[in-house]
Amino acid sequence: MAAVGILDVDLCGPSIPRMLSIGRPDVHQCDAGWVPVYADAQKSLALMSIGFLLEDPDEAVVWRGPKKSAMIGQFVSDVAWGELDVLLVDTPPGTSDEHLAVLENLKKHRVDGAILVTTPQAVSTGDVRREITFCKKTGVRVLGIVENMSGFVCPHCSECSNIFSKGGGEDLAKLTGSVFLGSVPLDPLLSSSIEEGKDFMQSFPNSATFSAINSISQALLSSLQND
Amino acid sequence: MAAVGILDVDLCGPSIPRMLSIGRPDVHQCDAGWVPVYADAQKSLALMSIGFLLEDPDEAVVWRGPKKSAMIGQFVSDVAWGELDVLLVDTPPGTSDEHLAVLENLKKHRVDGAILVTTPQAVSTGDVRREITFCKKTGVRVLGIVENMSGFVCPHCSECSNIFSKGGGEDLAKLTGSVFLGSVPLDPLLSSSIEEGKDFMQSFPNSATFSAINSISQALLSSLQND
Repeated sequence: MAAVGILDVDLCGPSIPRMLSIGRPDVHQCDAGWVPVYADAQKSLALMSIGFLLEDPDEAVVWRGPKKSAMIGQFVSDVAWGELDVLLVDTPPGTSDEHLAVLENLKKHRVDGAILVTTPQAVSTGDVRREITFCKKTGVRVLGIVENMSGFVCPHCSECSNIFSKGGGEDLAKLTGSVFLGSVPLDPLLSSSIEEGKDFMQSFPNSATFSAINSISQALLSSLQND
Repeated sequence: MAAVGILDVDLCGPSIPRMLSIGRPDVHQCDAGWVPVYADAQKSLALMSIGFLLEDPDEAVVWRGPKKSAMIGQFVSDVAWGELDVLLVDTPPGTSDEHLAVLENLKKHRVDGAILVTTPQAVSTGDVRREITFCKKTGVRVLGIVENMSGFVCPHCSECSNIFSKGGGEDLAKLTGSVFLGSVPLDPLLSSSIEEGKDFMQSFPNSATFSAINSISQALLSSLQND
C-alpha cells in the first residue's frame, strides 16, 4: 500500500511523469477506480497525472476551466489511492480553476497547507505574494516558501553568480510572516539527472544541492509539526 | 499614436508592468474605452495588463475561466488601442481559457501567428510541443521557437555551463518543422536590469545577450515576411 501520493493537476503542462522518469505506463481500472502509477517496486509512491492518460504525449489538452475542474474531481475521488499518509498536489502557477478545484474536492480531507515556490527576482515573488493572498482568502495555511534557481556555483571556478537576483524568497517570507523553508541552487546535475532519468538524491548524496533539498524537507516537517 | 501594443493576458500572474518597470499608473477612461498605459513619452508602445487595474498589487485574481475570458474580451475591444501596427499578446503557459479567448476575440483581426518560448530541457520542450499541437488545431501559424535560459557564461572565468541542458529549442524546431528564431542566454545583467528598472537593450548594447535578442528580432521579421 502506498504511503505517499503525488497528484499532478497541471493539465495543460503535466511534468510529473517526466520529472520522475516514468515512461508511458498503461493506467488500469479496478473496482475502486483508476489504479495510480507506482514509481517504485514497493508501491510506496503513487502517482496520477493526465500525462499518463493521453494516448499521444504531444496531444494538447485544450480544455476550459469547467472541464479541468471536473477532471481534478475525478483525480481525487476516482483514483484508487489506497491508504495514503500524505497526498502532495502539484499545481500550475496562478490562483484559478485548478487551485479552487483542488480545495473543493479535498474538503472532506484535512488540508495541511500549501508550499509556495518562487525564484529570487521580484517578477516571481510578486506572483507568489498573490498566491499567499489566495491562501489567506481560502483559509489554507502557508507551510512555507522555497526559493528555487537560487544562485549558481560555476563548476569551473567555484565562483557564485546570482543569475536571478538574490534573497527574494527569504525577503518575501519575512514580509508575509511565512516560514522560509530554504533555497535550491541552480545545478546542472539536477537538470541532467531529470533528462537522463537518474535519481538525483541517490546519485549525488554529497552535493550542496542534496543538502539544500534535505534541509528543506526537515524545515517542512518542523513547519508541519508546529501546527 | 502608438505603433505597438502589448496585451498581458496572464491575469493571475501579470508580469508586463514589472518587466517594463511601469509603476502603478492610473488607468483613465475615454469615450473609446480604457486608455492604455504608454511606456514612452512618444506614446509608441501601448500596454494593458490587469496589473494596472488592481488597487493592491498583492491582490489575488481568483477568477475561473469564464470571468478570465470576459476580461480578455474587454481588453481587446474596450481598450482605446488606437491605430496599431502590431499587437503582441503575452499569454501564460498552457492551452486553455486565456489562449482560446485571445483567438476568439481577435477573429476580426489578422492573427500573424504565435511565438513559442521554451527552455532547453525536455520537461519544457514537452509542454511547448503540446502548444504547437494547439496552434495546429486552432489554425494559428507558428512563427518560430525561441530558446530561453540557454547556457550561462560565468562572468568570473568565461566558461559556459548548460544549466538546463542544451539545444532543446533547436531540436524541437527541427522535429516540428518550425523556424528556430534563436537563443537567449542566462544573463544576470538581464535580470538585474529588470529588478532595477533599467532598459537592458539601451544599457548593454555590446553584450552577447543584446546580440542574441537582436538576432531573434531579425529572424522573426524574416519569418513574418515569408508568409
